[in-house]
Amino acid sequence: MPAEARNFFQTARKIVCVGRNYVAHAKELGNEVPKEPVLFLKPPSAFLENGGKILVPQDAEVHHEVELAIIIGKSGRKISPDAAMDYVAGYAVALDLTSRNIQTEAKAKGLPWTVAKGFDTSCPIGSFLEKDQVDPQDVTLVCAVNGQVRQRGNTKDMLFPVSVLISHISHKMSLSPADVILTGTPSGVGPVKPGDFIEISLEGVSRASFSVGEDA
Amino acid sequence: MPAEARNFFQTARKIVCVGRNYVAHAKELGNEVPKEPVLFLKPPSAFLENGGKILVPQDAEVHHEVELAIIIGKSGRKISPDAAMDYVAGYAVALDLTSRNIQTEAKAKGLPWTVAKGFDTSCPIGSFLEKDQVDPQDVTLVCAVNGQVRQRGNTKDMLFPVSVLISHISHKMSLSPADVILTGTPSGVGPVKPGDFIEISLEGVSRASFSVGEDA
Ligand SMILES: [Mg+2]
Ligand SMILES: [Mg+2]
Ligand SMILES: [Mg+2]
Repeated sequence: MPAEARNFFQTARKIVCVGRNYVAHAKELGNEVPKEPVLFLKPPSAFLENGGKILVPQDAEVHHEVELAIIIGKSGRKISPDAAMDYVAGYAVALDLTSRNIQTEAKAKGLPWTVAKGFDTSCPIGSFLEKDQVDPQDVTLVCAVNGQVRQRGNTKDMLFPVSVLISHISHKMSLSPADVILTGTPSGVGPVKPGDFIEISLEGVSRASFSVGEDA
Repeated sequence: MPAEARNFFQTARKIVCVGRNYVAHAKELGNEVPKEPVLFLKPPSAFLENGGKILVPQDAEVHHEVELAIIIGKSGRKISPDAAMDYVAGYAVALDLTSRNIQTEAKAKGLPWTVAKGFDTSCPIGSFLEKDQVDPQDVTLVCAVNGQVRQRGNTKDMLFPVSVLISHISHKMSLSPADVILTGTPSGVGPVKPGDFIEISLEGVSRASFSVGEDA
């Protein structure tokens, strides 16, 4: 695997996110369970490293969504589900922070989700994990806020597993080394406020933590 | 200005696009004139260089949208409109190719525009132009299909001028050298089909042309 994948924080040219990939989360937001993966993008300017400070934008009601991140290791397009795992360099634990009020308004107006999903620090992410450190379809995702567990779910409950996500995305846009895919969040999403302390983990494998401030 | 801006094709980490920035185009699609710029992203995997072949995705009704592209020259966030032009490295002529049927369905369902806007080759773009080669608020954009002019509009008709766009975007996400901003399209958008030949220009300054094939 190329060094650029391990160094994804500096080199990734896209972050592709999957929405509604856990039935319980789709339902908690009142959304239909999708027939194919819902895709959107965050810009690489959204990355925040372990230990960093989340900046809540003014007038935003930001929600935490803990997710398994896939780091892509080689270039491909129109990849079959059978071949998809060969394109994985590694994994990380991540948050898909979402300005829920702005997203809700965008959805109602048929407008893009970009502003709700793409603000600076909206993609806090842990360190690179080698592929063999994680079982992508049997790892527990945990998000705790101020020491209280808010989200706890296992990747075995994904609607579309990692191999299907990689295949599907690669039919919509080419994948390149260091590209990052966020694979959706289990239920339990909720607010993140200035002063909070957020801890996320792939249980028993990797953890990362973040303080929260205001983007004054 | 850093070399990476001139080399944006290889180095850009985001492409920020502005929708509905010309009143006549907003109206031709039956959309409201927005109170603030509508923003969405294309991934850098969407770039196509001058002379390349546009690949129309299966089941997609792709439309041409000729636009002025801004190439960012230095890092910034929360830039004031007064300072905004200092962040411009140069310009290019570009197409924001759009799978209109997929976008229309996404809008109706409140889903992201990403698949409609982000397919490979959906951002054909001309060569880097130095800042002093272009008057960003008085240049004529032209798009011709098979020798027939389909779009012809002047950037003086932008709803939000370049300085306001840069300022607005930089309040939503940081800008970095080589980032590309597509500034919206004048009226006259229409279909692009396999076998077509597309020519786009900043009249009297720069031109680029593309063949069209099928993404079989
Ligand atoms: Mg989007
Ligand atoms: Mg999510
Ligand atoms: Mg456009």
